[in-house]
Amino acid sequence: MLGTMIYGPRDIRCEEVPEPKILKPTDAVIRLAASCICGSDLWPYRGLNDVDWPKPMGHEYCGIVEEVGSAVTSVRPGQFVVGSFCISDNTCPHCRFGFQSSCAQREFMVGAQAPFARVPLADGTLVATSEIPADDLVPSLLATSDVLGTGWYAADAARVQRGSTVVVVGDGAVGLMGVLAAKQMEAGRIIAMSRHKTRQELALEFGATDIVTERGEAGAARIKALTNNIGADSVLECVGTKESMAQAIQCARPGSMIGYVGVPHGVEFDGQALFFSQVGMLGGPAPVRRFLPYLIDLVLERKINPGKVFDLTLPLSDVAEGYRAMDERRAIKTMLRV
Amino acid sequence: MLGTMIYGPRDIRCEEVPEPKILKPTDAVIRLAASCICGSDLWPYRGLNDVDWPKPMGHEYCGIVEEVGSAVTSVRPGQFVVGSFCISDNTCPHCRFGFQSSCAQREFMVGAQAPFARVPLADGTLVATSEIPADDLVPSLLATSDVLGTGWYAADAARVQRGSTVVVVGDGAVGLMGVLAAKQMEAGRIIAMSRHKTRQELALEFGATDIVTERGEAGAARIKALTNNIGADSVLECVGTKESMAQAIQCARPGSMIGYVGVPHGVEFDGQALFFSQVGMLGGPAPVRRFLPYLIDLVLERKINPGKVFDLTLPLSDVAEGYRAMDERRAIKTMLRV
Repeated sequence: MLGTMIYGPRDIRCEEVPEPKILKPTDAVIRLAASCICGSDLWPYRGLNDVDWPKPMGHEYCGIVEEVGSAVTSVRPGQFVVGSFCISDNTCPHCRFGFQSSCAQREFMVGAQAPFARVPLADGTLVATSEIPADDLVPSLLATSDVLGTGWYAADAARVQRGSTVVVVGDGAVGLMGVLAAKQMEAGRIIAMSRHKTRQELALEFGATDIVTERGEAGAARIKALTNNIGADSVLECVGTKESMAQAIQCARPGSMIGYVGVPHGVEFDGQALFFSQVGMLGGPAPVRRFLPYLIDLVLERKINPGKVFDLTLPLSDVAEGYRAMDERRAIKTMLRV
Repeated sequence: MLGTMIYGPRDIRCEEVPEPKILKPTDAVIRLAASCICGSDLWPYRGLNDVDWPKPMGHEYCGIVEEVGSAVTSVRPGQFVVGSFCISDNTCPHCRFGFQSSCAQREFMVGAQAPFARVPLADGTLVATSEIPADDLVPSLLATSDVLGTGWYAADAARVQRGSTVVVVGDGAVGLMGVLAAKQMEAGRIIAMSRHKTRQELALEFGATDIVTERGEAGAARIKALTNNIGADSVLECVGTKESMAQAIQCARPGSMIGYVGVPHGVEFDGQALFFSQVGMLGGPAPVRRFLPYLIDLVLERKINPGKVFDLTLPLSDVAEGYRAMDERRAIKTMLRV
């Protein structure tokens, strides 16, 4: 089959790869309904992560179960499933605590920018729908696998509550999903920091009440001005750079929480500055599995439409162009027809 | 009157100082029932803080209101009061959010190692008891002013809940108060990290269920062994050094919270390491004022006895010896008869 490999910075190739097989009795193999490119895929693409080249790419997925290992009991061939980008057994103490992304058996999904993928720990990782969903729901179901689940976790970690004032730092796909999540959690005010017109429009559509285009000191001043000089109750940090993290801290009121889901690159916190800012922080890879059943239901009931975050759809054979479009910010998020 | 001044590292002097006066209409002057030395006073004592020498010392206090400014309405001369080491108006948005230690008008109390002290923003800062409390309750009431309130905040920020497994890093007075707080919050297991016999005994008396004497990697391994390889649900960091903060992070399970109340000195966090550890953090100067009414009631009802943390009592004139005893860890916390 065709699959996506990265050979080095900016070297994405769609090439012939072996079809995935059941390797362990707890595995499943699924036929993907669609795949996509993640913002985090751009870290290795830009040469900012150490990677053993070549490496199969893709960790967001949904589709039909093709085959299961002998130990798998909760899903069966023919079912439509969604899984998290974090593989988890969903039974260990960390999973039961709701942090499946720190599962004792955690693996990170790979190789999902392809028509078929192997999913380890299928019982713990996959959530099946009761029926095969309508085709038009596939983009939104695919989004629950990572980008929505991650934005949702940012809002959860930042303890967004009914009536909260929320600032979302980052207008990438995850930030936009954070806006959607804060809206679902009934935040009173959702301030999206964005300077890109198409992303601003999508943020407003997902529930943002205010757009702030300024950044840095000016951005923080604007947030203070919008919040009676108080700062936000909850801040969602959805980028992972030094600048975005500083922005998040500057926008947060004392006693608030920052949910940070952009993998930090080159970020250091000064302990004493953080102490006196008195902002709380919780981040990490999102425990998407915790939220999946709820998010899938919201999609199936057509209460949310996170699939709108895909503003470019390409055939798998054009995956390299999908990376380029996201790298150059011509696309928010690329869906791949597999 | 006599008061306590610091002139430089290890240079504490009890000397004649001016009696405090009402400077603003919102001030009160109180006659202290007792005073004490804080672990944080040891930072300048050890030359680890930049200080404009000479500086009046002491920020923990309780006693009788002597005089109030013309704008003060909630306390009157003759009443017994306790106040926080953080001066706050208790009306600004940060105060109403429960973070009085980030009050828009915040000041830090000074000059309370003396018989009289001026308390700014008396209406917001002071809590009066309905009657003059019995003398034997004074040490415990004094403790609520900072050391207990700070240990309590550590437990609150770490979200200790009924049945939680709690690790307390630091066996100083604040750590011991953290143990007491976790016990009151009905933690199921309270693991105190301490290698000093008298502090271990006090920790056990305050409610610790386990004592861990190891530190560093060995300490973290011991915590893992005690918690089925899971880690703690809540960690109270009550020191503020690089080593103690690393210890706290190593002991915390993914998804847990660390309440950190030791003022960080030389502490930096690596963003990516913190991200993947998936521990939450909330710290800062404790908003003691939030907890004061509740803590005072617990003391007056004789449900807690935090005053036991004072294991040395000296007359004010011997204050320098009180600092030495704490610096050399001969005393946990020194009370001063004023």
